[in-house]
Amino acid sequence: MGSKRFKCALGIDFGTLSARAVVVDVATGRELGTATCPYASGVITERLPGTDVALPPGFALQDPLDYLDALYSAVPRALAEAGVGGEQVIGIGVAFTSCTILPVRKDGSPLAADPAYRAEPYAWVQLWKHLRAQEEADRMTEAALEDGALSLDRYGNHISAQWLFPKVWHMLREAPAVYEAADRIMEAGDWIVWQLTGREVRSTSLAGYKALWSRERGYPPADFLRRLDPRLEGVVAEKVESPLAPVGTAAGVLAEETAQRLGLQAGIPVAAAAIDAHAAVLGAGVAEANQAVLVMGTSICHMVLAERFRPVEGIFGVVEGGIVPGLYAYESGQPALGDLLDWFVTHHAPAAYAREAERQGTSLYGYLEAKAAKLEGGSGLIALDWWNGNRSILDDARLSGLVLGYTLDTRPEHVYLALMESLAFGTRVILESYEAQDIRLERLVACGGVPHQSRLLMQVFADVAGRTIQVAPAQQATALGAAIYGAVAAGPERGGHRTVQEAVAAMTGAAQVEYVPDPGRRELYDKLYRHYMRLHDFFGREATELMIALRR
Amino acid sequence: MGSKRFKCALGIDFGTLSARAVVVDVATGRELGTATCPYASGVITERLPGTDVALPPGFALQDPLDYLDALYSAVPRALAEAGVGGEQVIGIGVAFTSCTILPVRKDGSPLAADPAYRAEPYAWVQLWKHLRAQEEADRMTEAALEDGALSLDRYGNHISAQWLFPKVWHMLREAPAVYEAADRIMEAGDWIVWQLTGREVRSTSLAGYKALWSRERGYPPADFLRRLDPRLEGVVAEKVESPLAPVGTAAGVLAEETAQRLGLQAGIPVAAAAIDAHAAVLGAGVAEANQAVLVMGTSICHMVLAERFRPVEGIFGVVEGGIVPGLYAYESGQPALGDLLDWFVTHHAPAAYAREAERQGTSLYGYLEAKAAKLEGGSGLIALDWWNGNRSILDDARLSGLVLGYTLDTRPEHVYLALMESLAFGTRVILESYEAQDIRLERLVACGGVPHQSRLLMQVFADVAGRTIQVAPAQQATALGAAIYGAVAAGPERGGHRTVQEAVAAMTGAAQVEYVPDPGRRELYDKLYRHYMRLHDFFGREATELMIALRR
Repeated sequence: MGSKRFKCALGIDFGTLSARAVVVDVATGRELGTATCPYASGVITERLPGTDVALPPGFALQDPLDYLDALYSAVPRALAEAGVGGEQVIGIGVAFTSCTILPVRKDGSPLAADPAYRAEPYAWVQLWKHLRAQEEADRMTEAALEDGALSLDRYGNHISAQWLFPKVWHMLREAPAVYEAADRIMEAGDWIVWQLTGREVRSTSLAGYKALWSRERGYPPADFLRRLDPRLEGVVAEKVESPLAPVGTAAGVLAEETAQRLGLQAGIPVAAAAIDAHAAVLGAGVAEANQAVLVMGTSICHMVLAERFRPVEGIFGVVEGGIVPGLYAYESGQPALGDLLDWFVTHHAPAAYAREAERQGTSLYGYLEAKAAKLEGGSGLIALDWWNGNRSILDDARLSGLVLGYTLDTRPEHVYLALMESLAFGTRVILESYEAQDIRLERLVACGGVPHQSRLLMQVFADVAGRTIQVAPAQQATALGAAIYGAVAAGPERGGHRTVQEAVAAMTGAAQVEYVPDPGRRELYDKLYRHYMRLHDFFGREATELMIALRR
Repeated sequence: MGSKRFKCALGIDFGTLSARAVVVDVATGRELGTATCPYASGVITERLPGTDVALPPGFALQDPLDYLDALYSAVPRALAEAGVGGEQVIGIGVAFTSCTILPVRKDGSPLAADPAYRAEPYAWVQLWKHLRAQEEADRMTEAALEDGALSLDRYGNHISAQWLFPKVWHMLREAPAVYEAADRIMEAGDWIVWQLTGREVRSTSLAGYKALWSRERGYPPADFLRRLDPRLEGVVAEKVESPLAPVGTAAGVLAEETAQRLGLQAGIPVAAAAIDAHAAVLGAGVAEANQAVLVMGTSICHMVLAERFRPVEGIFGVVEGGIVPGLYAYESGQPALGDLLDWFVTHHAPAAYAREAERQGTSLYGYLEAKAAKLEGGSGLIALDWWNGNRSILDDARLSGLVLGYTLDTRPEHVYLALMESLAFGTRVILESYEAQDIRLERLVACGGVPHQSRLLMQVFADVAGRTIQVAPAQQATALGAAIYGAVAAGPERGGHRTVQEAVAAMTGAAQVEYVPDPGRRELYDKLYRHYMRLHDFFGREATELMIALRR
């Protein structure tokens, strides 16, 4: 059989609503087969499944058993679609949402699987967007800035309520019995790797970005944690510390029983877990310094690779070897992108447009985009894209959106274009925050769903940034990136790759689509950007109380 | 016949699209009959009727013959509906849009009626909103502020492009032959009075508000006009100056031929013409000092009566005896109200709301209002209501609208309520501009279409202003006010009234509906008003270039 000549890598992308497995050719990156499996309980926000436990606002939990079901469902189907045998698969990579954590027993079994804990919300997985630990995050930030213990400049001088220690501390305060019963508290990505290999080895990337770990300093020191809460003193030693493996290396090899259930060969390397947006960088074809990837979906992540550490303003984090061994990987972002366009189309496009779109047989998005693309001279409005707050560079979730310049002649397409422009201005602020620290950005690559959905948005981004933006050809950049980690973990001796760079060069194609700035538009947007920055600094730095008052 | 016992007054309200005649009982103000007649050519914006002359943007012309057709159509029908004979009508009042001007011959015949001028745009009526004379207005303002010739503090230190002299100068520059052929250039309101009486007598109110006239100084001096343009030197003496009559007095008596055509008796007094919004003040039941009327339609006019002159910020004008003899009548305003709500409902209410409104058998306005009325704690947004620029108190047409505080949870009803709140904040700024000049406002009365259409808007206005707002019971306050002027012009000897105050007291009823501030909402809005003012001053005074840049 011809297909047996291929060596394959398996990538598994655990997203927020489903997991996707892809089987790719290690030599070319060509996708041979793919399958997805939605999580049966999805995101749990209102009631714990199978119980009558109602959840307060802000809860976003998951069932860890859903991950295993998805794993055992998607992988065999992807293999079947690829038409390859398990013996052709030489390595596995896992990408996961993060920081998504769960409490488990010594043997790796989740507390949530124990009927005794099934009615305890904090026994379940706290998804990345489970945001109940703001108070803990604020107190940790304050304490860390006071005593300088954690060198917070790696994190834009800010500890997020999404991260491991605020979430763990909140769990301790809200559900001390669950905390007590948890032998380990860990990222779900690391936990899946444990399920595959039978051995707990955590990823330095997850630890670095979400658990305040660094190679030089390790995790936060016990005395720092004790000063926050005496009960936290032993948390690192007892529940967190473990062997670590950098991304691009194997955390272990596939265990016998799991291999059988998946239809794979036992003993193949399983890569250390990666954060989903980070795996997408590789899938987008980027593994060199001074390049950036815009991961564009409901929100935007800006991932930047560079050779050195610089205190870039408003970053979420920077980790040496966080994505590619030997390079610093920075992360910035804007917390709404597709979400914002969805909001407008859903709630502010008039009935007349909906009817006309239907008559033309197009979507309301397509109809609005066509009208917006015809506007000469931009939208005539300026917006601040802070509908979901501002992460980079202002780092203030209480900021909100603004549109300025309305007249009685303003039509929905003007506002739609203004929202796109504002998102592009927001990205330009971020790109300039790197350049202000002498990190050159020589290449921009976009991936995610949005670049394939809106040509206008991409052109506006290019015009506003004044830079060419390539669109990564891979539709599933995250899953491909996970497979690339699997191919590198396998190494050349098994038919994989020696380095992440070599794997990316072999397994990703050249961009077929790129957006080049239009000189006239670029000049127009240069002018408008000065006005945007005036508003940005006024509302984001000088008069923040205006937006904060409204959030109350 | 019982109805013969009534003495009646006739009021005619020449609006932008139609004229309305009402016949009212002089003793009680009760409306006995009414009729309207739309203007056949309406507002002429694209092409001169009966010609192939296309009009540039900004044109808003009318056909003077339409006014006569409407007059001769509406008055007899109103009389017929009232069931009264012409001999019962003791006086006539006319209210007209302003500044709406036309060129006429010595005999009063409009140039536009002459086939030789039918293809000349400037031979037609320039409607109040025909706005082509901005350059002339700016140059006049500048010159007047430089040499202090016109005491512009009566006009908020600003000459509007809507007014007579900028329009006349523009006509001279654009169409010198028409200017030359015009023996008289005059307000359409004064011209209608001429048509009724056979004699040219202009209203001091129209002259005072729109032609820079005052009792002390007369019209702008010839040397001032010559410095602007030598050809303007003689314009006042040759084309403008005429006998004048104050509002509340007779400009003349009804001529024989006209009386016959209208079904009235010759010789009854015809009052000096009034500006439509000013007549509405009387129709709303206000004729005393320290009272204000909000005329609420597509835009808002704030008319304030006071005993003395004060340089109130941002007023359009103040004229002694401008509405009521012996009192100073001030005018301020916001250039969008109903227009702004229409804009939102038409262009930004989603299809889902339109469907649901239809299902409930309500209008989209009613549906949005019902949802907005349920919002606790206000809209959660702050808007600047400058969709059509700002008149009072900033006087800058280049300013534009703003909405701040958007989140992904913002729904159309939040924005709809925020627009109402912003309009109310704008009115509060204006009310406070009077109080800052020690003009107390002891009573607020609203009239126009909007107060009868939106209970929520009225409540928000009361809550934001922190004052009770009465709604004038008259649905047609302007036409009633015109009739009141007619009753006063008739005087007690004919069975009319001695003074405007007495006529208003007799002919208008007590408010049946009033909106009282809710204490909790008032406190909330006091807080938000401070934020509104911060935005108002930032965008309207400090950083005006932001909005101006977008208008280009």
